[in-house]
Amino acid sequence: MRAAILRNGSMVVDDVADPVPGLGQILVRTLACGICGSDLHFAQHGQAVVDLTAQAGLVDEVVSGPVLDLSRDVIMGHEFSAEVLEVGPDTIGPEPGAVVVSMPVMLTDTGVSPTAYSNEYPGGFAERMLLSAPLVLEVPNGCSPRRAAMTEPTAVGLHAVAKSGIAAGQSALVVGCGPVGLAVISALKLAGVEVIVASDLSPRRRDLALLMGAGVVVDPVVEPAMDAWRRADGVLPLVIFEAVGIPGMLQSIMRDAPRSSLIVVVGVCMQPDSFQPFFGTAKELSLQFVLAYDPMEFARALRVIAEGAIDVDPLITGSVGIEGVPGAFEDLANPEAHAKIVVEP
Amino acid sequence: MRAAILRNGSMVVDDVADPVPGLGQILVRTLACGICGSDLHFAQHGQAVVDLTAQAGLVDEVVSGPVLDLSRDVIMGHEFSAEVLEVGPDTIGPEPGAVVVSMPVMLTDTGVSPTAYSNEYPGGFAERMLLSAPLVLEVPNGCSPRRAAMTEPTAVGLHAVAKSGIAAGQSALVVGCGPVGLAVISALKLAGVEVIVASDLSPRRRDLALLMGAGVVVDPVVEPAMDAWRRADGVLPLVIFEAVGIPGMLQSIMRDAPRSSLIVVVGVCMQPDSFQPFFGTAKELSLQFVLAYDPMEFARALRVIAEGAIDVDPLITGSVGIEGVPGAFEDLANPEAHAKIVVEP
Repeated sequence: MRAAILRNGSMVVDDVADPVPGLGQILVRTLACGICGSDLHFAQHGQAVVDLTAQAGLVDEVVSGPVLDLSRDVIMGHEFSAEVLEVGPDTIGPEPGAVVVSMPVMLTDTGVSPTAYSNEYPGGFAERMLLSAPLVLEVPNGCSPRRAAMTEPTAVGLHAVAKSGIAAGQSALVVGCGPVGLAVISALKLAGVEVIVASDLSPRRRDLALLMGAGVVVDPVVEPAMDAWRRADGVLPLVIFEAVGIPGMLQSIMRDAPRSSLIVVVGVCMQPDSFQPFFGTAKELSLQFVLAYDPMEFARALRVIAEGAIDVDPLITGSVGIEGVPGAFEDLANPEAHAKIVVEP
Repeated sequence: MRAAILRNGSMVVDDVADPVPGLGQILVRTLACGICGSDLHFAQHGQAVVDLTAQAGLVDEVVSGPVLDLSRDVIMGHEFSAEVLEVGPDTIGPEPGAVVVSMPVMLTDTGVSPTAYSNEYPGGFAERMLLSAPLVLEVPNGCSPRRAAMTEPTAVGLHAVAKSGIAAGQSALVVGCGPVGLAVISALKLAGVEVIVASDLSPRRRDLALLMGAGVVVDPVVEPAMDAWRRADGVLPLVIFEAVGIPGMLQSIMRDAPRSSLIVVVGVCMQPDSFQPFFGTAKELSLQFVLAYDPMEFARALRVIAEGAIDVDPLITGSVGIEGVPGAFEDLANPEAHAKIVVEP
C-alpha cells in the first residue's frame, strides 16, 4: 500500500507492506485522516518525545510494546475515519463496508499500544490500517467520513473543557486558535460557557474562532488577550486554555493572568521551557496539563459531530491524497492558509 | 528603637525611629519573630521580587501603597507575636500588656499594605511594630509568645493542605523538610492523612519531619522519594508538596511524578526556572501554586497551636536578639544546625 512515512526525520511517500488483521483486529481502508499539529511537532522533535517519555517513567507503565524507534519507519495519522475491509479471525466486528472511527490505540495481550506513533501499527497516512475490534465505533447518522475524522481533535477539546471543571457561568480565554484551540472553543460553547474570548495572531484563525463559538476575538499584538477578557467579563476566577504549545507561552500567560486563574495546558510543547515560578506563587495560579480523552469522551465527540451539535466543517480547509502529505506538512506552517488538512487516500 | 535592617542588600543592625500609632493602629513590642526562608531569599533576590511583582500586574491591584524601594530600609519579620503597648487614637483594641498576633498586613485607607516587606511598616526584626487593630488576635490559653510566633508558618501549612483538597484516604509526599515542609507535614497530620512520606537531604530535618508527623522519611540521594512513596502506599492520585523553592525542583518532581499527580507548589522560588512541559502533558499533571493563607486559616493556626493540636516546639531550634539577626541569617544556611531561629528582642 502507499503511505506517507516519517523516515529519518523526513516525510516521504513510499510503498509498504499491507497490514494483515490478527485475532481481535479489523483491517480498514483509510477514508479521511486529519494532519495534527502534534504530527508536525513530532516530525521535528520526535526523538525528544521518545527520550522524555522514557525519562518520565511512562514506558511499560500503561503503554506496552517496544519503545518507538525513529530509525525505523513511522506512519503517523491518528485522526481518522475508515471503511471496514476485513474482520480478523475469530473476531466480532462490523460488516465490511461499514464506516468507523476508533481511538488511535491497539489493545494487545500485554496492554495498550499506540497506533500511528508506532513502528508496528500504521496510522491514517497510509491506505490501510489495523484497528482493535472492541474500540471501533460505527459512524452514525450518515455523517461524512471527513467530518467523522474530526472525532479525535473534537474529543481533545471536550476532554480539556471537562478537565477544567469550568462552569457555565464562568468565562474562558483561549490562547491560540489552531485546531486544538478551535476544538476547545467548540467544546466550551457546547458546555454553555457564555463568554469565550479567543486570541490568535492570524486573522483567518480569529475568523474561525468566531465561527466555532468565540464571542470576542483579539489580535494579541493589538490588545493583550487579558485586557480583551477584562472588557468582556473580568469576573474571577478565569479559566485560560493554552493551545499554542511553544516555549514562552506559559511564562507570558502566567505573567498576565489574574489571581487564582486556572491555566489548562492543552498545547503540547515538546521543547524545554522556562518561566518565573514567582508569577504562579504571587497569584496562586493553577496549571492543569491535559492530554487526549477517555473512551466516553471519544464516543461523545463522534455523537456531537454526527448530530450537528458541533459543526466541524469550517475546520477543514484542505484535502490531499497520500502523495500530497509531505507538501501539506509544509503548507500547515502558514496559519493563514489552513486550519486542518485532511488526507483522503 | 533597635532594628535588624535589610539595607542595600545586606542585613545590618541600627537605630531607627519608633513607629507612632495612628487611627486604627496599635503599637506593639515584638516578643518573638521567626526568621523565614523567604526572608533569606528576599535578602538575596529582593529586587527580582519587586520587579516580578510589577510585571505580574499585582501592584495596585490588591496591595496598595508605593512600590517597595530597596534603596530604602526594609525591616523584615512577618512571623511575630507581640505585646500591646498603646492603642492609637479613636481606636478599639486590646488592653496594653495583651499578647497578640496578626497577619502581616496593614489595612489602610486605600487597601491592604504589607508589613515587613515594606518601606513603611517595620516587621518583627525591630523592637516595635504597628498592627492594624481589626486584624489583631489575642493569644489564648497561656500559649507562650515563642509558640504564638509560629502561627504564621503554621497557617502556611494549613492553607497549602486545604488548597490541595487532599482527602484523609489519600497519601502525600512532602519534598523538602525546612520550616515550610514541616508546617505542611503537621497540617497533613491534622487533616487525618495517614501516609505522609517526606524527603530531605538533611538527617536533622528528616528527624524533625518524623516528629511533626511524617510516617516515612527518605534521603533522596539514597532512594528516590517517589520510590519510598510507592513502597509506603502507591495509590493514585498522589499529592506532592514542593517545599524547597529552588530552580530545578519542579522539573525533577514532574519527571518522577506518577500520572495524574497534583503538585502543590509551596516553596517560593524567586529565580527563573526551566522544565519540560511534556512531562506535565504526558502524565496530565496538575500544579497548584499556593501563597499565604486567609484570615480564617490564620486564626485556626493560632488556635491549634494554643490548644496543642500542633506542637511547634521541635521547629524552634534557636533564639537571638536583634543584634544576632545578621548572624542568624548566615547560620540558617546550614540545615543541620537549624530549622527555625526566633528573634526575641
